[in-house]
Amino acid sequence: MAKEKKLVEAITPMAEDFARWYTDVCVKAELVSYSNIRGCMIYRPRGYAIWENIQKELDRRFKETGVQNVYLPMLIPESLLQKEKDHVEGFAPEVAWVTVGGQEELDERLCVRPTSETLFCDHVKDIVHSHRDLPVVYNQWCSVLRWEKSTRPFLRTAEFLWQEGHTFHATAEEAEERTIQMLNVYADFVEECLAIPLVKGQKTDKEKFAGAIATYTIEALMHDCKALQSGTSHNFGSGFAEAFGITYANKENKLVPVHETSWGLSTRIIGAIIMVHGDDSGIILPPKIAPVQTTVIPIQQKKEGVLEKANEICARLKKAGFSVQVDDSDKSPGWKFSEQEIQGIPTRIEIGPKDIEKGQAVIVRRDTREKIITPLEELEESLARVHDQMQKDMYDRAKVHLENNTHIAHDWEEFNQILDEKQGFIRAMWCGETECEEAIKEKNGATTRCIPFVQARHADTCVHCGKPAKYEVYFGKAY
Amino acid sequence: MAKEKKLVEAITPMAEDFARWYTDVCVKAELVSYSNIRGCMIYRPRGYAIWENIQKELDRRFKETGVQNVYLPMLIPESLLQKEKDHVEGFAPEVAWVTVGGQEELDERLCVRPTSETLFCDHVKDIVHSHRDLPVVYNQWCSVLRWEKSTRPFLRTAEFLWQEGHTFHATAEEAEERTIQMLNVYADFVEECLAIPLVKGQKTDKEKFAGAIATYTIEALMHDCKALQSGTSHNFGSGFAEAFGITYANKENKLVPVHETSWGLSTRIIGAIIMVHGDDSGIILPPKIAPVQTTVIPIQQKKEGVLEKANEICARLKKAGFSVQVDDSDKSPGWKFSEQEIQGIPTRIEIGPKDIEKGQAVIVRRDTREKIITPLEELEESLARVHDQMQKDMYDRAKVHLENNTHIAHDWEEFNQILDEKQGFIRAMWCGETECEEAIKEKNGATTRCIPFVQARHADTCVHCGKPAKYEVYFGKAY
Repeated sequence: MAKEKKLVEAITPMAEDFARWYTDVCVKAELVSYSNIRGCMIYRPRGYAIWENIQKELDRRFKETGVQNVYLPMLIPESLLQKEKDHVEGFAPEVAWVTVGGQEELDERLCVRPTSETLFCDHVKDIVHSHRDLPVVYNQWCSVLRWEKSTRPFLRTAEFLWQEGHTFHATAEEAEERTIQMLNVYADFVEECLAIPLVKGQKTDKEKFAGAIATYTIEALMHDCKALQSGTSHNFGSGFAEAFGITYANKENKLVPVHETSWGLSTRIIGAIIMVHGDDSGIILPPKIAPVQTTVIPIQQKKEGVLEKANEICARLKKAGFSVQVDDSDKSPGWKFSEQEIQGIPTRIEIGPKDIEKGQAVIVRRDTREKIITPLEELEESLARVHDQMQKDMYDRAKVHLENNTHIAHDWEEFNQILDEKQGFIRAMWCGETECEEAIKEKNGATTRCIPFVQARHADTCVHCGKPAKYEVYFGKAY
Repeated sequence: MAKEKKLVEAITPMAEDFARWYTDVCVKAELVSYSNIRGCMIYRPRGYAIWENIQKELDRRFKETGVQNVYLPMLIPESLLQKEKDHVEGFAPEVAWVTVGGQEELDERLCVRPTSETLFCDHVKDIVHSHRDLPVVYNQWCSVLRWEKSTRPFLRTAEFLWQEGHTFHATAEEAEERTIQMLNVYADFVEECLAIPLVKGQKTDKEKFAGAIATYTIEALMHDCKALQSGTSHNFGSGFAEAFGITYANKENKLVPVHETSWGLSTRIIGAIIMVHGDDSGIILPPKIAPVQTTVIPIQQKKEGVLEKANEICARLKKAGFSVQVDDSDKSPGWKFSEQEIQGIPTRIEIGPKDIEKGQAVIVRRDTREKIITPLEELEESLARVHDQMQKDMYDRAKVHLENNTHIAHDWEEFNQILDEKQGFIRAMWCGETECEEAIKEKNGATTRCIPFVQARHADTCVHCGKPAKYEVYFGKAY
């Protein structure tokens, strides 16, 4: 018992210090380690396996929409990065530069890609000539580097893993359609597999991606009521195409520029899983994304037949398609329970001599700790049912949290009161001016999260400046 | 007909210039594009899809042996790279250095990883304390950068994609076992899936990896009779462990160093597929690794019912688990045949009005161009049979090529004669001295490929220097 307590004690309670709780669970669940390279972290097996499952699921969904994977170089010559002026302004300050190759000083320095729009444009201008060559619908799984000073596992690191989609279209309409289509792919995936409810909308001009004409976003609300931008999709119009000279001969044989999009989702989303679902005992992984879905824990495993039964159950569940393991180490059951809980494995199956006698096993849910006694012969069906219910309940709980912490502010006083007392998302009317948006941020730290696709109208004037209201906006403090 | 000729004419015949044939097919099959970044290439959809299939298959085989995937930073501080002296000597001359991050000059420069032994050691020393923490069996899929001057697609590029396995063990025996185990995983994969026969053996001291006590290799023979090192597995003993201070408490509670291995296979293997199986019409992909296994080509597709039947066949084959596409473009059938051949799609299925009338389809093998007429109702079985046979025949042909081009040299005269007249692998006895090995290379360009696991004895003295023979060695000119 002392040992079990120690394991849990190592995690700072959420209520005491959410930020420390977060880093504690990331480390104690063995998702990551800090490295000796500034701003870079190590994805350990349990953390990387989550990313592998995310990749597998997203990649399948991408390919169903006609996406092709490619791989472009990790280095970008400075002159190439500078071709699109908004883009270089956005990224140049935060890149790392290679200046020496082999033993020689380079004539032109090369940055490690912070994102690859410029490389994709440079390549696509060589392969697109006619309307028959369009659309080009590419994606790349890779790591990128942005010279961040602070490090928070998954949320803010210099190097991170992501996918970046880059597509090129004949018409503006098609580009816009693809931009929205990919946002919806993200949203469906995050809601269905990660059990995270979202707000979908458009970024303001101030918050949009460097070089884009429109950026769309999915925004999630963490347990501490801060927002997390969880995936973005950008429509570039023909700005990059004009800067890079990507034109094609249309059906009338006239050379016109292409229309481009890009969209990305990163390992940051693992931070969202942790901060939406976790509790004081550790992380909680939705069954649909958990690398290990259930652990079989033998009770009194030295008694005859117990370990054999545990292994038999494991083999049966594997055969039925579950990802399952047996913990047959010489630790105490309580210690094993704590480890399963810290690691967020959705369920454990307890099996001891008495259970064997009664022909049953006990399924314990990680989220509610509910114990479900099930006849051994029905174990596969029961476990599938428990996982389905758990996946649904996790989404529903997060949805209630999102709804309970989304407030409407009719005026500036109410806005500040909510921010002081309740946090969460604040829905309010806004004039549409960047200066006003900046003033709000300066006064109380709230940023525009998005202009939601589904618009409501709470007042006729901007919540801050009193000018005529243009949009309803979600405001919040964000990671 | 003129058009079809043009497509094929674009490929330099092998016999005329093998190197140009190679780059021609890489580009015409749309596997790669050259980029504007020195030494880096672009993996296009058809090229990257081959790598994805290789990854999927290898990753499954790795995991069956207990491998866990992780991801470590792409940057290595100079001081870390320098910790193991043989290793830094081997790699320091060919790395790229990041010297500026954000807007600031860095205190210590960081190299983009050329390989990650140093990073893995630095991490593992933090997580291994007791014999209970061993073995650590990690793998990483990533890109690495080595400052190469010349570029040959897949074979020699500054940046390339690979996997690098890094394992840590309690005993020297276990490390050696793992080193050989992973070499065998590579060998089985390459022979079974890529249909490439191999020679397995150990590298000489001169050719082994920087810092290893033993390097094992799989060597393949290309169509031009040059050798290609296709995968390597290294046993480091405890050299790195001592340099990095990776010790563990053994069962007697004594601190002792771990024993380490690493093993890697890269996109270079795609070069082997091309150079072992390709012909003057393009590449030929073994059915087990081909991203698209068959193309359905409608003949007289404007005639009623033809396109419908082609699509119906495609749907049926997809359902049966084949990776299949229909070419319903408005190109001529001949043009479509040429494209399928250049791209090395294992088979095409021709279906026209006459075939439909007769209730049949024509399967055409890419390698032999053999036409197999098959009743439509048996198409799935026929195609599976054709692919199995093709996979086997491709291996057998490559095996015959390997055997026909492996020669025994009993003396130095014979050695040089073979090298001048026949090329290929030369099996000969060697004294085991690095100086002698270097002298051979200087005289005629032949390098030791490996000391084969299965040893024969052709003479009692070294083929070059006449000293007592220690090993039989495979020599050859290599990529």
